[in-house]
Amino acid sequence: MQISDNQPRYKIGIVGGTGYTGVELLRLLAGHDYVDITAITSRAESGKVVSDIYPNLRGIYDLAFSEPNVAALKACDLAFFATPNGIAMHMARELVDAGVKVIDLAADFRIKDLAVWSDYYGMEHACPDLVEEAVYGLPEINREATRAARLVANPGCYPTAAGLGLLPLAETGAADLHFVADCKSGISGAGRGTSLGTQLSESGESFSAYAASKHRHEPEINQTLATAAQQPVDLTFVPHLLPIIRGIHATLYAETDLSSDELQTLYEDRYANEPFVDVLPAGSHPQTRSVKGANFCRIALHKRPNSNRLVVLSVIDNLTKGAAGQAIQNMNLMLGLPETTSLQQPGLLP
Amino acid sequence: MQISDNQPRYKIGIVGGTGYTGVELLRLLAGHDYVDITAITSRAESGKVVSDIYPNLRGIYDLAFSEPNVAALKACDLAFFATPNGIAMHMARELVDAGVKVIDLAADFRIKDLAVWSDYYGMEHACPDLVEEAVYGLPEINREATRAARLVANPGCYPTAAGLGLLPLAETGAADLHFVADCKSGISGAGRGTSLGTQLSESGESFSAYAASKHRHEPEINQTLATAAQQPVDLTFVPHLLPIIRGIHATLYAETDLSSDELQTLYEDRYANEPFVDVLPAGSHPQTRSVKGANFCRIALHKRPNSNRLVVLSVIDNLTKGAAGQAIQNMNLMLGLPETTSLQQPGLLP
Amino acid sequence: MQISDNQPRYKIGIVGGTGYTGVELLRLLAGHDYVDITAITSRAESGKVVSDIYPNLRGIYDLAFSEPNVAALKACDLAFFATPNGIAMHMARELVDAGVKVIDLAADFRIKDLAVWSDYYGMEHACPDLVEEAVYGLPEINREATRAARLVANPGCYPTAAGLGLLPLAETGAADLHFVADCKSGISGAGRGTSLGTQLSESGESFSAYAASKHRHEPEINQTLATAAQQPVDLTFVPHLLPIIRGIHATLYAETDLSSDELQTLYEDRYANEPFVDVLPAGSHPQTRSVKGANFCRIALHKRPNSNRLVVLSVIDNLTKGAAGQAIQNMNLMLGLPETTSLQQPGLLP
Amino acid sequence: MQISDNQPRYKIGIVGGTGYTGVELLRLLAGHDYVDITAITSRAESGKVVSDIYPNLRGIYDLAFSEPNVAALKACDLAFFATPNGIAMHMARELVDAGVKVIDLAADFRIKDLAVWSDYYGMEHACPDLVEEAVYGLPEINREATRAARLVANPGCYPTAAGLGLLPLAETGAADLHFVADCKSGISGAGRGTSLGTQLSESGESFSAYAASKHRHEPEINQTLATAAQQPVDLTFVPHLLPIIRGIHATLYAETDLSSDELQTLYEDRYANEPFVDVLPAGSHPQTRSVKGANFCRIALHKRPNSNRLVVLSVIDNLTKGAAGQAIQNMNLMLGLPETTSLQQPGLLP
Repeated sequence: MQISDNQPRYKIGIVGGTGYTGVELLRLLAGHDYVDITAITSRAESGKVVSDIYPNLRGIYDLAFSEPNVAALKACDLAFFATPNGIAMHMARELVDAGVKVIDLAADFRIKDLAVWSDYYGMEHACPDLVEEAVYGLPEINREATRAARLVANPGCYPTAAGLGLLPLAETGAADLHFVADCKSGISGAGRGTSLGTQLSESGESFSAYAASKHRHEPEINQTLATAAQQPVDLTFVPHLLPIIRGIHATLYAETDLSSDELQTLYEDRYANEPFVDVLPAGSHPQTRSVKGANFCRIALHKRPNSNRLVVLSVIDNLTKGAAGQAIQNMNLMLGLPETTSLQQPGLLP
Repeated sequence: MQISDNQPRYKIGIVGGTGYTGVELLRLLAGHDYVDITAITSRAESGKVVSDIYPNLRGIYDLAFSEPNVAALKACDLAFFATPNGIAMHMARELVDAGVKVIDLAADFRIKDLAVWSDYYGMEHACPDLVEEAVYGLPEINREATRAARLVANPGCYPTAAGLGLLPLAETGAADLHFVADCKSGISGAGRGTSLGTQLSESGESFSAYAASKHRHEPEINQTLATAAQQPVDLTFVPHLLPIIRGIHATLYAETDLSSDELQTLYEDRYANEPFVDVLPAGSHPQTRSVKGANFCRIALHKRPNSNRLVVLSVIDNLTKGAAGQAIQNMNLMLGLPETTSLQQPGLLP
Repeated sequence: MQISDNQPRYKIGIVGGTGYTGVELLRLLAGHDYVDITAITSRAESGKVVSDIYPNLRGIYDLAFSEPNVAALKACDLAFFATPNGIAMHMARELVDAGVKVIDLAADFRIKDLAVWSDYYGMEHACPDLVEEAVYGLPEINREATRAARLVANPGCYPTAAGLGLLPLAETGAADLHFVADCKSGISGAGRGTSLGTQLSESGESFSAYAASKHRHEPEINQTLATAAQQPVDLTFVPHLLPIIRGIHATLYAETDLSSDELQTLYEDRYANEPFVDVLPAGSHPQTRSVKGANFCRIALHKRPNSNRLVVLSVIDNLTKGAAGQAIQNMNLMLGLPETTSLQQPGLLP
Repeated sequence: MQISDNQPRYKIGIVGGTGYTGVELLRLLAGHDYVDITAITSRAESGKVVSDIYPNLRGIYDLAFSEPNVAALKACDLAFFATPNGIAMHMARELVDAGVKVIDLAADFRIKDLAVWSDYYGMEHACPDLVEEAVYGLPEINREATRAARLVANPGCYPTAAGLGLLPLAETGAADLHFVADCKSGISGAGRGTSLGTQLSESGESFSAYAASKHRHEPEINQTLATAAQQPVDLTFVPHLLPIIRGIHATLYAETDLSSDELQTLYEDRYANEPFVDVLPAGSHPQTRSVKGANFCRIALHKRPNSNRLVVLSVIDNLTKGAAGQAIQNMNLMLGLPETTSLQQPGLLP
């Protein structure tokens, strides 16, 4: 792709910018060569400058939160919704019709089956036709559709880690379609709101599962894998809360007749041209810290000796490849920019 | 059980007392009504007082490390081996013959199949006949045998958490015998020795699996479950390292036709008389912090809706019920003392 | 002190038992030989069993929260107030008059100068005469008065750590009376309420000062030192928030002409008979973890070479010696029980 | 400064690249527009690719460690020494003479008084004349000298935080010259080597001071302040270990007659043109996380009410502004590049 010297800079809006996906968008876009953030909205913090909420951005942005106002957002080329579930579906129609590209980081447009969506999210959908139009923004499966999309549903964090870890199996039928996804997430996945359970005194030096019987990301992972497999899959998904700030680790279990070498080749080939999926040597154990603040997904395979059991280990940063980084990857595709722009910084280690 | 007022105090030795199981034995035994620690050995720290190594014990113990000396240990009624693997098997014979009861907190006497033991521990066994005699000290299955034992193999930490979590299924055939055990351990499980991977700068704010293809605790869990089931079982065990100090969380997956209520009853009945196994209401999510420093195992069941998949969540403190606490539970049984003596303190929360 | 075999058990009430000082009282009293908790109140959680809030107490207590009701509390021999500031001052009068001994873990009765109290706590005092009567419950200075007291003001956490660290200097005039107290507290000191700043995602992997210009514990430390010195002192107190759950570390700076040896002797002599103050060898660096869950204060002295500067390092567990443990120490004194009852367990290490 | 389009890329070497300052140099230089890393040496890891040691750099660098070889390093335009103390002083002479600019991140060239240096570092200096020539690389005081330097001594982490926090006072005589510097550092400051004290099980959930009587950074801070003040200063420096990976917080105490407003103006004016020093509004409490992975120093002032006591709070990332970031800032100056190149990314928050 060729970007000319007089490439215009695109105008970007962020709706609901006070959460962790908001500040992560700001952090990652600070060094972007082709876009400017021209609007960031927050009903609660309207008028306040961004760095009052996010001290890491002092001296980086000269920007204040404004009221969420569709008219003002129409001046943008593209708008991110970093809002809670159920907001974007009320505002996306008007923006899309006005020619503003939209990326929703929440769940409004992720699930194609509206009945399932309503069951898991507890509300009626306000904009069903856009659900149908929306592209599920996992570039590794929908890159070309994303380039052409007006509206992208940015995937959830667990669905990104688990989906990328199991995709080669589902696409090829290399494994039977009964999966266990034992997933662990850093606590920033719970967002910036306050709750008892996410206080350091409550969640530090401890570990537990949550929502072990039913979690919203399960139908999303199911949809990704079933679409890839072109048939239903059976998935058991159990999320856990890690006493760290950032990082998701998916430990994925499947049954397959393929050998360790065949599996390694399958995964390496599948992701050979993916800029943000890194298949480690067989037998590796990826650490979440290897992707802290970075847009990479790192995957390793363990075919168990004398067994048809395969263990796939998949790590991402829930706020980057699991949210804001992937959203920017989608933005780059939608705007015709190099896909990796502003996303190539390494993880923060140590 | 009746303890008379003039109950004599037993003399207890600890061999290899400088590791974390050593200090945990000391902490828990500080308030024990019927025993005194009369010898604690360490080749490296011989002559040093205990509280120089463990500042939490200042003012609690007036005790110095001595050379590991079988002759001196023979004056004890019971000796704990808190040594690395491969030490107790060289010293246990002489002590047992001298009438000293022995509890090994390492792995020397855990695995009945010597070929498997050698494969996983990389050495020949020095004392095969004692392996046969040794009682596997999980009180929930071997309480009476432990009361009569001269030598007890104290279970590993993962095998305690996973074993107690799956035992009712294995014993009754309520589930098929294909299990996944996705286990997570606090970093004290790696012991007090120094290594790069357990430095705070390396392991803090991160999470990963390790030994995903082969881990020493797998044959031990297998042995427990196969013995209970009276037939072989198929187990996939994957351990992970948590960035916390204490705590194990086992997330266990099985297939069963029983309903949620039937499973709950099965577990509650099985553990109704167990002082240290606590079955939570169905659908609970036990936190490792609920057992921090305590000898309890807490278990919760999640039968997945519209599925035969059962998820069992089981938590212990790896140093307490997973090591030193369980060893004291075994000591109490072997000495004819009330089983719960000095083990009833609640977990440290927050 | 002699406790007879037929020592009656005292009835203890806890008012406002849902906070961290409440659960710490319950944890520490679980093994107490001479008292029973007969009432625990909480307006918000009335009717709920204690272990629903505190899973570490499952199987330990069979106790439910009740409405805070003065009539019911009158049946107690002693009541702890583990309430927010400003509650005890409305209920203490009636209880004390009814012969119920009272220990307030909040700040209502700590400051003798009511104008200062109102300035720092932002309210008028409801019960000035009891402020005068109340004994400031630092046993190391007020042991005998506490034995005779009807009402004890349990000291704050910072004032305990800083007060014990500077007391020998203030009492003897061994240093000039200009002190810097740079103090760091674990986050449980902020209590169990939710706030943005104490979320793990906000406070983990970070460190900062707070209230550097004015903090409520400053006049309390001042009062302790000025009383000891019998003249005003000049104190600069700056608190900081540590990303750990429990522990306070006070780093205290003073100017003195005494030598290192003289200072060491001064401190060792001062605390020779104190069961819970441990003066380490000169040049030590006490760790907060050495007192995690324990009622000890550990102190070390560093007289700087070629300088009259003295650095005193003082550590406690903010919830134990800094709150509930000290309150139980006071309870033991007020009830004529051995002072150390149920308080001798070592810290949890590692 | 104008960089032409055909600006040549400089060749950069890193000596001793396996420590944390090494990986931080690599992370920060990954996006640098004008330099390439052409050599990275490690005796222990020679032949291994960089990303085998640092998994965050997979896909970022195609670079292997080589033997530390002066001949090969002579092909570089500039070499960083990320080695232990006492290495650079043996290699710098030959490189400097060959026209290679040198930045030492260790302490070999920081202290002008060789007797003091030997006392604190326990060795004789191998290259005294270069000590005299070396520029102390704190750009805020030696920017112009650094531009012209052949050899730069990159400041220590504590000296950067404390020095920047006290510099305006020392330079102007606005305070008397008796300072207390109570400093707290994340554990990565101890480097990547293994030790018992930096294991997560030992250092997590705890806090303590260390080297409270004598620390190597004290004469360095002294030198900076005395040079600024043109007279000796009296400094009491006490370092503490924080259970976090990155971050330094210096709490600095001074006596001054200036008002809060005067002090605020003094600091704001002093640092008005400094790209990496950020003076916060008076009364702020900077968090270390606001500079995590970033090259900024954030400073806030608290003049205590009714007192001449000033408290200065100063935070940096010990690996960035406290080591590798500052070294790159110096490199940019020495190579005539824009000073902020590759250093403008915001801190990672949350």
